[in-house]
Amino acid sequence: MESIIVLKIGGNVIDNPSALEDVLRDFAAWRSPKILVHGGGKIADKLMEKLGIVSKMVEGRRITDRETLDVVTMVYAGLINKNMVATLQSHACNAIGLCGADANLIPAKKRPVKDIDYGFVGDLYHGCISADMLANLVKTGLVPVMAPITHDGSGSLLNTNADTIASGIAVALAKIFRIQLVFCFEKKGVLRNPDDEQSVIDFLDEVLYRKYKEEGVITTGMIPKLDNAFAALHSGVDEVRICNPEGLKTGLGGGTIVRIHTE
Amino acid sequence: MESIIVLKIGGNVIDNPSALEDVLRDFAAWRSPKILVHGGGKIADKLMEKLGIVSKMVEGRRITDRETLDVVTMVYAGLINKNMVATLQSHACNAIGLCGADANLIPAKKRPVKDIDYGFVGDLYHGCISADMLANLVKTGLVPVMAPITHDGSGSLLNTNADTIASGIAVALAKIFRIQLVFCFEKKGVLRNPDDEQSVIDFLDEVLYRKYKEEGVITTGMIPKLDNAFAALHSGVDEVRICNPEGLKTGLGGGTIVRIHTE
Repeated sequence: MESIIVLKIGGNVIDNPSALEDVLRDFAAWRSPKILVHGGGKIADKLMEKLGIVSKMVEGRRITDRETLDVVTMVYAGLINKNMVATLQSHACNAIGLCGADANLIPAKKRPVKDIDYGFVGDLYHGCISADMLANLVKTGLVPVMAPITHDGSGSLLNTNADTIASGIAVALAKIFRIQLVFCFEKKGVLRNPDDEQSVIDFLDEVLYRKYKEEGVITTGMIPKLDNAFAALHSGVDEVRICNPEGLKTGLGGGTIVRIHTE
Repeated sequence: MESIIVLKIGGNVIDNPSALEDVLRDFAAWRSPKILVHGGGKIADKLMEKLGIVSKMVEGRRITDRETLDVVTMVYAGLINKNMVATLQSHACNAIGLCGADANLIPAKKRPVKDIDYGFVGDLYHGCISADMLANLVKTGLVPVMAPITHDGSGSLLNTNADTIASGIAVALAKIFRIQLVFCFEKKGVLRNPDDEQSVIDFLDEVLYRKYKEEGVITTGMIPKLDNAFAALHSGVDEVRICNPEGLKTGLGGGTIVRIHTE
């Protein structure tokens, strides 16, 4: 089975042009087939502010109304996505920038209104990702660069969490490829002590994860990320790595490796 | 040789949501392999105005400075392109929204500075379009939807005229497919009398074109469009059609047909 790397980069990387340039150069140099999934960063917030659009929040959660959807579509699927593609192309990486509407790659479900109406937010569901189409693009030598926008199949775009898209793609492709899923964020990895960047936990399996949670070593911020990581591993993903841009250098050596089994 | 239709739609269609919806529904229904190329419309101008960005003009020509490039990238390759894709997907048309940076489809040349520095404007050159990659996407059953943004291969996006992209794609693909190139704009076709929408010239070849120009029947506005059309025909395109949205209905029956030969 061929291997593929799915790399998710978050806002902290996107908001720092020189960090982003470095990450894209490193990513372009990887010889393995690969897919990049990017989040949004603060560019959309800044554009909303300039346009006088006030982010609607309900119980601390952001609502994606029509105006917000238009802004995130422009910024995520347009400005950020296409500039990343142009940069990758300049490093001889044959990137193709896509969102979940393109080639019907990710038909999602508009989040149902219960206590809160999140607006134009899309949730993934089992089997929604067109793994075969995505695999075909990869097998042609292309490198998909995915913006966190999906669609409902009825003509509306939807705003979708980029971590969810990265895990979803990794799980969907696990039928076809051996998958390494990499989350690149601002910390060196999962830390024993959040204030000490040198306290990276090199390896986590479920036994260790449970132990560290009980001891209070792994705390709230990391728990959803790690729960997602283990869910992806249980759905066929081979390995999850959590690291910062430094950890993406040749050999993908840094950060925390998360696996179900130790061997 | 398989046939393909390359349809270019301009700003007047894009600025009118119900006209756009109709055009996309008609386009989705065509059974032939097909490619859509879209222009920009007034949405980018409106966004620039809201953001307080003043369009720089030199000798009546718009300059694409960095701020303008960011706006057109957001609007053309993001907002307009991805919403068109979502609409086409809702009509069971497997659209994939791309710009010229994606898959290195259109590496262009930044326009050289002579009397005027046009800024981030890209010109096509002979052989620049990756016809094989585009043909592969089409042969997979995908319908490329092209935004008028290209790239310079060194990491910068460039703003490129949508008519030029449509002709360029048609000519590049003429090696592989039998090409019908359709320009959809606000008039019913090439008119004998610009004030009379009923005065459509059904057919033009070069003899008739020369005659109508000499008689002053075809006037300045249409001449660059028709010169481009004949250039495309001389480079292997089979037929050019110039029509309005009405002319795109089943059978593609309306408007002006432009061919080199009468048979």
